[in-house]
Amino acid sequence: MLDALDKELLKAVADLERIPKGAYNIRKNGKLLGREVSANIDIESNADGTGIVITVKPGTKNESVHIPVILSQAGLHDVVYNTFVVGEDADVTIIAGCGIHCGGSAPEGHEGIHEFRIGRNARLKYVEKHVALGPGKGKRTLNPTTKVFLDEGAYAEMALSQLGGVDEARRLNTAELGPGSAIQITERVMTDGDQRAESRNELLLLGTDSKANIVSRSVVKGNSKQDFYVNLEARAKCYGHIECDAIIMDNGISETVPALKALHPDAELTHEASIGKIANDQLMKLMSLGLTYDESVNRIIQGFLK
Amino acid sequence: MLDALDKELLKAVADLERIPKGAYNIRKNGKLLGREVSANIDIESNADGTGIVITVKPGTKNESVHIPVILSQAGLHDVVYNTFVVGEDADVTIIAGCGIHCGGSAPEGHEGIHEFRIGRNARLKYVEKHVALGPGKGKRTLNPTTKVFLDEGAYAEMALSQLGGVDEARRLNTAELGPGSAIQITERVMTDGDQRAESRNELLLLGTDSKANIVSRSVVKGNSKQDFYVNLEARAKCYGHIECDAIIMDNGISETVPALKALHPDAELTHEASIGKIANDQLMKLMSLGLTYDESVNRIIQGFLK
Repeated sequence: MLDALDKELLKAVADLERIPKGAYNIRKNGKLLGREVSANIDIESNADGTGIVITVKPGTKNESVHIPVILSQAGLHDVVYNTFVVGEDADVTIIAGCGIHCGGSAPEGHEGIHEFRIGRNARLKYVEKHVALGPGKGKRTLNPTTKVFLDEGAYAEMALSQLGGVDEARRLNTAELGPGSAIQITERVMTDGDQRAESRNELLLLGTDSKANIVSRSVVKGNSKQDFYVNLEARAKCYGHIECDAIIMDNGISETVPALKALHPDAELTHEASIGKIANDQLMKLMSLGLTYDESVNRIIQGFLK
Repeated sequence: MLDALDKELLKAVADLERIPKGAYNIRKNGKLLGREVSANIDIESNADGTGIVITVKPGTKNESVHIPVILSQAGLHDVVYNTFVVGEDADVTIIAGCGIHCGGSAPEGHEGIHEFRIGRNARLKYVEKHVALGPGKGKRTLNPTTKVFLDEGAYAEMALSQLGGVDEARRLNTAELGPGSAIQITERVMTDGDQRAESRNELLLLGTDSKANIVSRSVVKGNSKQDFYVNLEARAKCYGHIECDAIIMDNGISETVPALKALHPDAELTHEASIGKIANDQLMKLMSLGLTYDESVNRIIQGFLK
């Protein structure tokens, strides 16, 4: 059922060597390749056939769902709308990700629009990796959207990364936080060549004692360009923090625009950002340990994106 | 020549108890109240009569110019266009500022549009204070603009403050930095009641080894609102830093939107921001020393805006 290329892509985006344990839904070239549900986690196609609905029963603990997407069909631009309903008190890990293999000159692309409804006191860990491989010159586009709605006391950890090979990305993350809920978003994006990546983030702190923390790590190589926007809007007693760091190499270009909007007197918002080259003293230290220049740079970047 | 009210305003905006030493130009209710030039500093009305041109001779050292504006005429909205030409290697201090006294229900306002051309290796210290006083209910508006052009090796220190009483402010600061030049902007704005203040800052780092540092301190009391924007754009090997801190009290609202644009691979840009209430432990400490709550708050705010 999985050929060698499929396996390479699944390994890259979801650390999968074989069909995963537990619930999963594997999509290849716009079609279902395989699906498994569990006693607590249901996966169904949505009403209009544009994606899937994943429902996690209240109280489900220590379960995971793999929903990787792989794409290797020239000219295909795949769009899916997936909904995740995580029941009260559940604790679940969802591993998503999209791998594109481009062998020719035709463009290939994927857009996953993911909506998360996280119930009271439920916890979600969501991991999403994006990568594009292959010798083809076709444009590879990956435009992910996540929309997170956090009920009272809910928690979401979103680990979002674009590892390389993606020519164009328009990334959008939105979150609405209820009372006592929290979200941690970590986004890591590496671009090279003439690649472009834009990340927009809209975080609405609506509930008392809600917390949002967003960390962005960008590595901008070659002639690539990355733009990062955050709108952190506080409408309650709450805490929000933005941290964005970019390493520029070669002729990379980076723009960072974080907006902090304290619309409530008990809001507490903070921000740190830095954009620059790799520090020379860090390079010198690694090179003095016997690493070459390129090895040292690589080591630092891997650490930065870890 | 100066009545009691004039003196009160001049003291508030320019620390002047009497007519200053050195060059000065005092403007009252849209008209010239007094002018003095020095051997090195010339002041002339501009060609179209809309303001003054202040010319500082190359090499001038340790001289100052006072150019306060006072306003106490109901219904007057005074607009001036002033130009400051600071010659090579000069080192000069310019003390500007505008004080409004409002006694009735008619609005009063002032807009000073100030353009600075700072020659090679010249140094400018520019101090501008804004304040509005008086029992009147008329709307007090102060919309200052500074446009700074820094030649090679030039340095500008801009200390800009709005101390209170101003109902509406649209503040704009722009700077274009040549090679090896540097600018330090410190803006302090306090609002209360239903006051609104907006500060826009556009800093263009054009020259190699140019440096920009902008610090914003906001105190947002009552139902007031402050918006702070920076666009820090790096087009050369350069260094830029933004620091914006806001203290929110009562029902104050604050928005901070700093944009960091690294358009050159050797640009280094950093940013820190925090918006929040006064820390409780700071208050407790002062109150344990015998200060009342209000005294403690006041002490902290004065320190923050110092």
